[in-house]
Amino acid sequence: MSATGAQGGTVYLVGAGPGDPELLTVRALRLLQTADVVLHDDLVSEAVLELVSPTARVTSVGKRCGQARITQTEIHALMIEAARTGAVVVRLKSGDPLIFGRAGEEIEALTSAGIPFAIVPGVTAALAAGAALALPYTERSLASKLVFLTGHHATEKGADTPVWEGTVPPDATLVIYMPGRDLGRLARELMAAGVEPNVLCAAVSRAATPQQSQTLCRVNELGSVQVGTAPLLVIVGPALERIVRPG
Amino acid sequence: MSATGAQGGTVYLVGAGPGDPELLTVRALRLLQTADVVLHDDLVSEAVLELVSPTARVTSVGKRCGQARITQTEIHALMIEAARTGAVVVRLKSGDPLIFGRAGEEIEALTSAGIPFAIVPGVTAALAAGAALALPYTERSLASKLVFLTGHHATEKGADTPVWEGTVPPDATLVIYMPGRDLGRLARELMAAGVEPNVLCAAVSRAATPQQSQTLCRVNELGSVQVGTAPLLVIVGPALERIVRPG
Repeated sequence: MSATGAQGGTVYLVGAGPGDPELLTVRALRLLQTADVVLHDDLVSEAVLELVSPTARVTSVGKRCGQARITQTEIHALMIEAARTGAVVVRLKSGDPLIFGRAGEEIEALTSAGIPFAIVPGVTAALAAGAALALPYTERSLASKLVFLTGHHATEKGADTPVWEGTVPPDATLVIYMPGRDLGRLARELMAAGVEPNVLCAAVSRAATPQQSQTLCRVNELGSVQVGTAPLLVIVGPALERIVRPG
Repeated sequence: MSATGAQGGTVYLVGAGPGDPELLTVRALRLLQTADVVLHDDLVSEAVLELVSPTARVTSVGKRCGQARITQTEIHALMIEAARTGAVVVRLKSGDPLIFGRAGEEIEALTSAGIPFAIVPGVTAALAAGAALALPYTERSLASKLVFLTGHHATEKGADTPVWEGTVPPDATLVIYMPGRDLGRLARELMAAGVEPNVLCAAVSRAATPQQSQTLCRVNELGSVQVGTAPLLVIVGPALERIVRPG
């Protein structure tokens, strides 16, 4: 499969990274510069979209806050139809395409339709937030596991299941994507799953953009602190002790 | 902080990604091309190192298989001394610097020495392996959590603690970095932590390099299958059902 358009007919599921165009991969940048068709999510930043070839057809296929302006089936049809005309198609997703990006359904649709595809990984938001906070996610003495999960509002089925059934390992750093608006409920569910009330957490708004802001608190304070606007990540765990300076 | 060398004296902890130079971020590539000093781990690929400015001083500070040719304290001293001469220093780590990269100790050393630093995230090996396998790590119906952890041999303390104390959530995809040589033991410990014996797993050797290979099996077969050479990732969970085609 080629990124040059010579063969065409290929769909690239590409991670756009967290927003800063400097955090695109070299391969993602080259694909944006050579694509014939770009289908992007709402969360992909303007700064990244500015790098797309001026001759490409660019379509937003975002479904912000679950409001379907376009259905998943329609996205599949757009990808497949464009690929069948011989176009180099970039399906551009915020972060990494395989993490909370519904890539599974798109891969299945492309496979069923016999369309060649490739996946280009990207810097997922958690890694950018960690870098901005200078937060080592794993630390031999504090954290040996890193967990990415979502809050309630990300799942359409099972909206009533708690964020973690069973017990959260005490040596884990949790990064909660799409934590929803009710951070107090999230905190209560984490504590019900064994997270100690005084464990540190950070609510990071718009990670790796010029508007990034963060709030540090204890889990039992999460429901009452002021946090920034979406997209928001909530990071929880003893690893955060590393970035809280005494005094 | 500037990547141009005009200010100098800064240390950049940079993720080199999984090996393929196309999976460097744009920012990492630019830093490699402008750095005065590059201190890199053993696992950083030759193809990435070829992109470093020809005028840079490049030093391998790798500690392959725990064999200390150089101590962590010596690495700190090299970074700090170079930065004090005004150099732009790139501390280049395989994958993402904050995931199993001992960044915490280096950040602490730089902070104590008053050296300005910045962290440039990278594509961690798991994301590259997922992309190569076309494996959606999260899937509403199969997996809502993605967990990065290490096998025994990664921890110096606590070498006798099992890979997971408590119960592994059934809706998790686990990616085990540095799983060690005894995959049978790893499998037994996962099953002791509640992973069903027939859950799928993949042992991915040298993810995102031309030598990548992978072995698919069930958890209870992991100890007896032939796997590729290190670096190895073991991926476990129901999400793998997506890439196992019937027949």
